[in-house]
Formats: sequence, C-alpha cells, structure tokens
Amino acid sequence: MTRVKLSLAYDGSAYHGWQKQPQQDSIQGELENALQQLTQTVVPITGAGRTDAGVHALGQSAHFDTNMSLSPARWVRALNALLPKDIAVNRAEIVDDNFHARFSAISKTYRYQILNATEHAPLSRRHRVHIHYDLKLQKMRAAAKALSGLHCFTSFCAAGSVVPDHNIDLHYIKIQKAGDEINMTLSARRFLKYMVRNIVGFLIEVGRGKRSPNEIQDIFNALDRKAAGPTAPAHGLILVEVKY
Amino acid sequence: MTRVKLSLAYDGSAYHGWQKQPQQDSIQGELENALQQLTQTVVPITGAGRTDAGVHALGQSAHFDTNMSLSPARWVRALNALLPKDIAVNRAEIVDDNFHARFSAISKTYRYQILNATEHAPLSRRHRVHIHYDLKLQKMRAAAKALSGLHCFTSFCAAGSVVPDHNIDLHYIKIQKAGDEINMTLSARRFLKYMVRNIVGFLIEVGRGKRSPNEIQDIFNALDRKAAGPTAPAHGLILVEVKY
Repeated sequence: MTRVKLSLAYDGSAYHGWQKQPQQDSIQGELENALQQLTQTVVPITGAGRTDAGVHALGQSAHFDTNMSLSPARWVRALNALLPKDIAVNRAEIVDDNFHARFSAISKTYRYQILNATEHAPLSRRHRVHIHYDLKLQKMRAAAKALSGLHCFTSFCAAGSVVPDHNIDLHYIKIQKAGDEINMTLSARRFLKYMVRNIVGFLIEVGRGKRSPNEIQDIFNALDRKAAGPTAPAHGLILVEVKY
Repeated sequence: MTRVKLSLAYDGSAYHGWQKQPQQDSIQGELENALQQLTQTVVPITGAGRTDAGVHALGQSAHFDTNMSLSPARWVRALNALLPKDIAVNRAEIVDDNFHARFSAISKTYRYQILNATEHAPLSRRHRVHIHYDLKLQKMRAAAKALSGLHCFTSFCAAGSVVPDHNIDLHYIKIQKAGDEINMTLSARRFLKYMVRNIVGFLIEVGRGKRSPNEIQDIFNALDRKAAGPTAPAHGLILVEVKY
C-alpha cells in the first residue's frame, strides 16, 4: 500500500463543493471516479478541507492509498487525462503512511477576490465578486487586524456547526488592492464552516460604513451567528494553499 | 440625433462573434436588443472590429445614433441592466457626428494569453490557451521582430478574405512571460481576418522549434495562407484597446 498526496486546482462553479453527496456533482466524487477508472478498485480520497459549493481551489491537497505503483509524474498525467477540464492535478507525491491531508496541515490559506468598480467585468465574473459600493480599505484593515489572532469564532461560524471547538487562531487577514481589484488573504490552521465568507461579509459591511471595527469585541462575545454580517458569495473564494 | 460611443468588455465564450448573424448569438445582436428595449426603436450599432467566435474583449469600441437623450453614466447603467452578464459597457461618451468606431480608429491592440505549463489550469481555462510544449521565447521574439512593420500579410490572412489590401503596418508584437503565463500583445491600425491568431499560431510553432524566424521572408513572399502555421485557438484572444 502506498499513500499518494495530490495538489489540486479546480473551478468550483459547476460543483456542489468538495464533499461527495448522493445525486450531486462534487470534486471528491470526480476524483474518486477517475481513481476507480485508473486502478479498477474503489479508492476513497481525503481532502485537506471541504470547500463549499461554488468555491474554487488553486492549491487544495488530498491523499489516497493504493496498491498501484506509478511515479508521481504518471499519477498526474493519468488522472488529468480522466478528470473533467475544470479539475486539475498539479502535483503528486508519494508520502509516508503517517501523512494525513487534513490532520497534518499546519495552515490553510484562502483568497477572496472582489472587483470594486461601478460596472461589472465579464472576464472575471466567475471568480471575483462585483461590489459597486465604495469600500474604505483603511477601516477594513483595522477590522482585519482586530479579527486576527486567537478568538472564539462562533459568531462567524454557520449556525448548527457540529465542530465543538470554535477557538481558532486566525494567523492573518491581508487586504490588498491593485486597480479596481481587492484581494483578501486569510490564513489559519483550520477554519469553521462558512467562516471565511462570514468574515469577508462582515469586512465588506465595514468597508461600506454599515458596521464598525469597534463592534468586533461585542460580536465575538455574542457567540451568535446573527451578530456578524451576511455571508459573502461563494464564487469569490479560492483555497490557494495548504501547508504541511 | 446624438452619436454615442461605447467602450465594451465581453466574454466571447458563448457567442458566435461580434457580428450579428441569423439564428446565432452575437455581441452586436445582444447590444442591439438592449438598445431596442431601451429606446423602443431599432438602433444599429457599429463596432471597431468584428471579433471572431469565442474571442473576448476588455476594450472593444462601438457607436450608435439615437434621439434618446441620456447622460453617459445613464447610458452605461441602463444598458448594463439589460445586457447579459457576459457583456458589459465600461464607458459611454457623446461624440461628434464625424466619429466612426471603425474608420476613426488609429490602433487596435490584441492580447493573446497562453499558459505554458505541463498541466492545465481550471481557473484560467476559458481565457488562456494551455500549451504543454516548452516554448523558446528568444526565438519567438526574433520572429515577432521580423513580423513587425509594413508587410503584405496575405499568408497570415484567412483564405477567401474579401478585403483587397493586405498591406498592414504591424506596429509591434510584445511577448511577455510571468511565471508560466505568456502574453503576446499585438498592435496595428487594422488586422485582416484571423491575422492575429495566424501570427500567434506561427509564433507557437517557432517556440516549439518546428519553424524558424528565418522562414518569415519566404512566407511573406508566398502570398499563400498555407505557407504560415496553424490558426491559434480563439479563446486565448482578447481585444484590449482601440485608440482614436
């Protein structure tokens, strides 16, 4: 038995998210189909994180166990030949049996992409959310700073989450602007369900002047999803890197 | 009667090109539909150039005449509210009656986008052509230099073109590389049918080592489409700017 680690990119537009679900197209499902075609056996695959419906990836990671013996380059080529065009294997590695795509991860980095312009942009519309309100970056950066560090993120976690521990050390939130494009980059060892999009939704409200960075301590204390802002749309979010 | 100039962006993936054709979706057709809905009259629109099926634009220009009196900002907003999401008006201007989107243009600039990597990239697949062969930029740049300037481009023009004059002053071809992305930028007052994609097709062959920059004079002299390379795919091509 060999454990193989994959680095993956995908356009999530057409998928119901990473996780395999009955009657729904998923990234995990497409990968397991390709692995089954290739190896002629059922091969479960484990991802570093379960990206939501419509969320993209440039650097998702996953692992699977197999009796098939292929070089890393051959795994990449064989899987890409079987996968649909909106999913790509960037790299394969033979890893130690102790490696686990989810539990071995030391950080995950997400990027949220915004077009902040009066009019929308057809060529980036699938991966960048159009916001025509003027966004005040200085206020957003103040809020990003207050959100960073170790906090209980219950107010930024989807209601009904089954994960017991909501204490997350949010390593950083960087907000960068180039022309009319704003990118927010967030990094942590783990994130709660919808946490990135809930933080971004709040930061957009701050940028518009509807909420203030001064409210953040109260929002944390409320331990209530309703205390923070709306959830930002899925299609602006990209899982860019998982570090081990 | 007022003449209005529009600056347009579009994702050409779903269209049969700029030009209106029976039973086919076209950019011109969508714009004329929106103008008819808005003005309640038939309003023909003239583009700076007829982009082919599948070709995109960040800065196409067009003009139309109307009795409707709206401010430029209102034209933009009203048309964008009626247009599909893959077409956007970036800017409107009230122009002189002598202005003509095609004949007044002093230069058009196209960008051709290549991903030069072993594996394909799902997030850029609609606007960047994947080439896994190693491309030698130095040779491509030598060929680009030899192609620039005033030449008879019959060998780089679609066979059966009805335009009589094939003498074009190709202002420049710039080839830039950043990571695994190669962009080729071409500028001229006018281009012949498929000329950009035929030049790019030849440059890719040069980059692969299948053709040589030394052949260019013979190709020009041949006055024969078959003398140059294959036509590069449409989806890597973007009309980025029309200057007046």
